[in-house]
Amino acid sequence: MDLEARIHSEHPDELRLWLRLLTCTQLIETRVRFNLREQFATTLPRFDLMSQLEREPDGMLMKALSQRMMVTGGNITGITDQLVNEGLVERRDVEGDRRAYRVCLTPRGRKAFATMAREHEAWIADAFAALTSAERNTLAKLLGRLKSHQKSMEAQTA
Amino acid sequence: MDLEARIHSEHPDELRLWLRLLTCTQLIETRVRFNLREQFATTLPRFDLMSQLEREPDGMLMKALSQRMMVTGGNITGITDQLVNEGLVERRDVEGDRRAYRVCLTPRGRKAFATMAREHEAWIADAFAALTSAERNTLAKLLGRLKSHQKSMEAQTA
Repeated sequence: MDLEARIHSEHPDELRLWLRLLTCTQLIETRVRFNLREQFATTLPRFDLMSQLEREPDGMLMKALSQRMMVTGGNITGITDQLVNEGLVERRDVEGDRRAYRVCLTPRGRKAFATMAREHEAWIADAFAALTSAERNTLAKLLGRLKSHQKSMEAQTA
Repeated sequence: MDLEARIHSEHPDELRLWLRLLTCTQLIETRVRFNLREQFATTLPRFDLMSQLEREPDGMLMKALSQRMMVTGGNITGITDQLVNEGLVERRDVEGDRRAYRVCLTPRGRKAFATMAREHEAWIADAFAALTSAERNTLAKLLGRLKSHQKSMEAQTA
């Protein structure tokens, strides 16, 4: 079965390219989810949430956190509660606003994340190992153009 | 905010490339979901399901259908029920197996899908319009290598 086989259209190369882009993303993401579960008994939304907090030593407001998440499908409040219960994340009061709080990694959470992040990096390096450094550069450049184009279309609609 | 900014690792270019790939896929997918909702009051899983059936005039068994779906997050039985209720899809008995059935598009479903597919093609062509035909070929080739590599890693693990 090849998903690209079903194409019979006026824009066959764009459609084929889109399905290929989608398939690559899904294959890599599926492997990352599998490895996170097998090696760390965790999920991609949990990993993603910790990775957002990792670069904000002062913590983040929940709203900013949910805007930054790369992965959908996670209930951010629920995941935060879990991580707090496990001692990996803590809530801190916001001065001058009694209803708001910031979320940050605990020292233990930071350490746990560093271990996972090192492995995650190796999985991603493996995923792209079939391409040379020059090919990765070319791919990055083309995807950069594709990304800017989507953002400019988005800006026109908004 | 740029998601690529958070990288400080030993494999910075692979990680950056992965986030860029993920971002491109998400931006295009978000736009497709938005357009399907605005223009056809439908969802990506419904569109995806109809597109799988479109190339199988004799219909598909539910199991085969769920394996082919590109998009996750849809309850396939639920979506099929909806489309049956709307007269876009029908169930047919399977000879010699009283418990199984095949699912196929009705003539009305086929017509409705053709209209949506034509628009969908135009959205995808727009999404890639920033790249020349030669650049799209290069991108397709690089993504093809990336895809084969994931599939060969998958085969080694399985």
